[in-house]
Amino acid sequence: MSNILKNILERSLKEVSIDFVIFGFNGGELKVLLLKWKNTDKWSLPGGRIFPDENLNDAAVRILVERTGLKNHFLQQFHTFGDVIRNKNYSKSETYKYLETAFGGSFKTGESLGRVISVGYYALLDFEKVTAVPDLVTDECKWYQISELPLMLFDHNEMVEKALKTLRKDIRFMPISNLLPEKFTISEIQKLYETILNKQFDRRNFHKSLVSQDFLIKLDEKRIGNANKAPHLFKFDTQKYLVALENGIDL
Amino acid sequence: MSNILKNILERSLKEVSIDFVIFGFNGGELKVLLLKWKNTDKWSLPGGRIFPDENLNDAAVRILVERTGLKNHFLQQFHTFGDVIRNKNYSKSETYKYLETAFGGSFKTGESLGRVISVGYYALLDFEKVTAVPDLVTDECKWYQISELPLMLFDHNEMVEKALKTLRKDIRFMPISNLLPEKFTISEIQKLYETILNKQFDRRNFHKSLVSQDFLIKLDEKRIGNANKAPHLFKFDTQKYLVALENGIDL
Repeated sequence: MSNILKNILERSLKEVSIDFVIFGFNGGELKVLLLKWKNTDKWSLPGGRIFPDENLNDAAVRILVERTGLKNHFLQQFHTFGDVIRNKNYSKSETYKYLETAFGGSFKTGESLGRVISVGYYALLDFEKVTAVPDLVTDECKWYQISELPLMLFDHNEMVEKALKTLRKDIRFMPISNLLPEKFTISEIQKLYETILNKQFDRRNFHKSLVSQDFLIKLDEKRIGNANKAPHLFKFDTQKYLVALENGIDL
Repeated sequence: MSNILKNILERSLKEVSIDFVIFGFNGGELKVLLLKWKNTDKWSLPGGRIFPDENLNDAAVRILVERTGLKNHFLQQFHTFGDVIRNKNYSKSETYKYLETAFGGSFKTGESLGRVISVGYYALLDFEKVTAVPDLVTDECKWYQISELPLMLFDHNEMVEKALKTLRKDIRFMPISNLLPEKFTISEIQKLYETILNKQFDRRNFHKSLVSQDFLIKLDEKRIGNANKAPHLFKFDTQKYLVALENGIDL
């Protein structure tokens, strides 16, 4: 095991870690970022450790920036996973084998990798804007379609399921701005909602419900392009948007 | 410090604990259960430790049963609190003083009570059906009105706020059955929603929206009492109720 890795494990909290379901959205597609463990063909979600003098949320932001380089992301804690046995898809001995291969060293049970409770965060970003970077124990990053996820290490398939359920619940309450250009059309925001919720909305009703929200400002500009009809552009009213994010809306 | 207490602290996970926002509902009132720390006048939420061989959720159920005696409760994990400095209302030295008084022993920093990340659960129950019991470091239990909470130890005021926000969001998605009698009127369920959401609903709209949910069965019975008009009784369709609980509803 490398000294850097050893040092990080030794300096960090032992019983708690963070895992991330990083959703990538672009052009009607919703994907999840996975990392491949070094010298294995096994995948997991990105994750990381918390330093003793670091707030949990700060650790989450730090690790997400390390993996994606992106600072302006939508990041939400969604659930903490605390089963004693968290290797759901592979046996304990298999899991240890993959871990030892990736970490480049052998573990005794309880040493560095004893029972760990993991706090799950989900992030939502534009996968075209991100160059994902593997961490010290992984050697490949890949955006997987949600319907095509492999059997991951630990309880990570369960994590994705739970995160997706939370995201779908959350976006009914929280307008999400960071996946849209500064000025956008109602069709663009509808596409975002349809992709995340995996269902179609009636154009007219969606339009009506959204335009009635006071955190949207209708601009005097129109999107001029190849469309037959140039649609109006909108932007978020930052103040009201933050209030809506805090208090919840009813879309 | 008593040997029992010492033993529990030694046997448990050190870096993670559980805290509970136990909401009590009855007759249009919503309260929160607090415990007073032994030989002090300081209050906190009920909490507890996780054993190494115990799933996080099982620990939550165990501790809640220990405090309330109730097995049939509505229990939800809502947020994990991981700031380095979690004593928000009292200084570190004050907090240590109260802790040492209640625990009956002195602590060195880092010993048993170093940095602890706490997983928050909220429960919802009928406070008339519960005889709350203090734990080893507290000597009094009290149901506080939400608007009259004292300044609690640690970040517990923040926890109540976050839990209340989550509960209010959750009940728009999750029908809650355990606070109602087996057979209930629409007015009774409306009262429950109004109390939790702290707002009034139009009787007719609420009725219409609820009766359209397929997890409710309209019975042939009516509530005969002192009311002018005997209202119809309803009950939950258990199968469909569980599906609605899982998938979310739109009230």
